[in-house]
Amino acid sequence: MIPLTYENDARTRSSFLLQPPFLRHDGALYGGTAIAASVLAMEAATERPTQWVTTQFVKPAQNGSTIAMQTDVLASGRRTAQTRVTATVRDEIVFTSIGSTGARNPDGLTGQFERMPSTGGPDEAEDMWQGHTRAGQIPDQDSFRRAVEYRQMPAGEGPGPVLMWARFTDGTPMSAAGIAFVADMVPVAVARSAGRMGAGTSLDNSMRFGEVPEVEWVLLELRGNLASGGYGHGIVRVWSEDGTYLAIGSQTASMIFLWDEGELPPFMQRS
Amino acid sequence: MIPLTYENDARTRSSFLLQPPFLRHDGALYGGTAIAASVLAMEAATERPTQWVTTQFVKPAQNGSTIAMQTDVLASGRRTAQTRVTATVRDEIVFTSIGSTGARNPDGLTGQFERMPSTGGPDEAEDMWQGHTRAGQIPDQDSFRRAVEYRQMPAGEGPGPVLMWARFTDGTPMSAAGIAFVADMVPVAVARSAGRMGAGTSLDNSMRFGEVPEVEWVLLELRGNLASGGYGHGIVRVWSEDGTYLAIGSQTASMIFLWDEGELPPFMQRS
Repeated sequence: MIPLTYENDARTRSSFLLQPPFLRHDGALYGGTAIAASVLAMEAATERPTQWVTTQFVKPAQNGSTIAMQTDVLASGRRTAQTRVTATVRDEIVFTSIGSTGARNPDGLTGQFERMPSTGGPDEAEDMWQGHTRAGQIPDQDSFRRAVEYRQMPAGEGPGPVLMWARFTDGTPMSAAGIAFVADMVPVAVARSAGRMGAGTSLDNSMRFGEVPEVEWVLLELRGNLASGGYGHGIVRVWSEDGTYLAIGSQTASMIFLWDEGELPPFMQRS
Repeated sequence: MIPLTYENDARTRSSFLLQPPFLRHDGALYGGTAIAASVLAMEAATERPTQWVTTQFVKPAQNGSTIAMQTDVLASGRRTAQTRVTATVRDEIVFTSIGSTGARNPDGLTGQFERMPSTGGPDEAEDMWQGHTRAGQIPDQDSFRRAVEYRQMPAGEGPGPVLMWARFTDGTPMSAAGIAFVADMVPVAVARSAGRMGAGTSLDNSMRFGEVPEVEWVLLELRGNLASGGYGHGIVRVWSEDGTYLAIGSQTASMIFLWDEGELPPFMQRS
C-alpha cells in the first residue's frame, strides 16, 4: 500500500511522497489514496482496525508533493477510538478525515443482512485498462490505474448496479486500506444510473468495514441514489468472491463530466 | 430547530445551550442534535445548502452544558465549500463534523435512481411514543422524543426495512437540518436485520441531501447492512409523502443493547 514514514513514537505524525501510482489522470492526488492513507494513519496511531472513515477532499495536491498527516486521537475507550486526520502540503490542508477504529469482540453482533448480486467472477468480466494518454493528462501507467486492475461485468437490461472486480496488480492482498483505495468509483455509477456516461469530482468518500480477509479480488457493486442540481450521491457495496460482505461506502460528487452513450466524451471532441 | 447564537459576523463561531428536547434518554447530547447543529453551522458560515455531512460523536455532553462550535471553511469555490466543525464543552471536543455545502445549478444533473418502498402513509402507522420513565433515565418528555413524533409501519413478513414516519411535534417543517435530527435511527434497523431487538450507540452519522421542500412528514426507510464483532453498519433513505427522495444516510454503531423478541430488555430485567 502507501508507504508512510512515521515521525514520532506514537505514530500520530506521518508523511508520504505523492508520486505514481497515487495520482488521478490529471496528475493530482487520487481520492482513493487520501482515504487509504487516512485508514493507515488511524490504525497506526490506535493499533486497532478501522470500523468507519470519512475523507473530505479539500484541495488537489500535486505530483511530487510531500503530504504530512497529523492524527488526533480525540477519544480512546476500552474498545473504540475516535480519530481525526489532517493532511497538509506546506501547511495548507489538502484532505481531512474522521473515523473510528475499534477492537472486534468475538462475541459481538456479527452477520450480513444483504446479499451479493448474482454475477460472474473476474474471469467473466472485461478488463477496463485503456492504456492511452489523453491530451493534457498524465499517462495511465502513472495513475492509480497502474496499481489496480478493474474488470467490469457487462451491463444487464434496464437499470442496475455497475459491477466491477478489482485487484492490486502487484499481488498485494486486500485490507481495509486496500478496499478504500480501489472503491473510490461511485460517481461513475451515479452517471450510469442517470443514463449518462462520464463521472464527477468526488467531494468525499465514506467507508464502513467488516473484517477484511487477505483476498485478491473484490467485487464493487456501485449504485447511484439521487442527484440534485449537479450534486450526485451513490453507494458501493464491496464483496469477496465467496460472497462475504466486506464493506459499504458512499460518496457525493459534483457531476460535471457527463455525455451521452455513443457520443465522444468532451475531452475527445474537437472544439 | 436548534437556536444557535452566532458570536462573530462571519458566523464561524456559534454556540447553543444543551437542554430538553436535545437529549437522549440518558440525559446526554442526542446524536441527531449534533448533526443538525453541524448542518446549521455549516450553512450559516457559507450561506449555501448542505450537500453532505458526517458527524463523529466523540464524548457525551451533559444536559445544561453550553456547546461552542468553531466552523472552519477549508475551501470555498464558485459553487462548493468544504467545511469542518469542531464542537467543544469547556475546550473538550464533544463532536466534530466535516461536510460540503454548495449552490445547486438549475441545469445540473437531477434525478432519483431508487424508489420509495410501497407502504401506507403516516395515518396507517403506529405511534411509537411510550411516555414512560425508566429507572436511571430522564423522562421521555425531556428527550428528543418530545420534539419528534415517530410512527412505525407494522413489519412485513421476512427481512425488510424498518419503516418509520417522522415529523416535528411543534409543526416545524422539514429542512436538511431537520432530516438530520430525525433520521439518527439506523442502529435500530441493524438490530432488527439481525433478528434482534434493541439498538446500539452510534459512533457517527453521515447524511447526503437532495433539495428538501418544507414538508411535514418524512418516511425513514432503515436497513442494516452488516455487523462484525459488535460493530454494525446500516443506511437510511428519507422520502417525502409524494415519493420524492430527500436524503440518504449511513451510520456505524457499537451494538451493545440487544435482546430477543419476546424477552424483557436488559434494563427491565431484575438482576
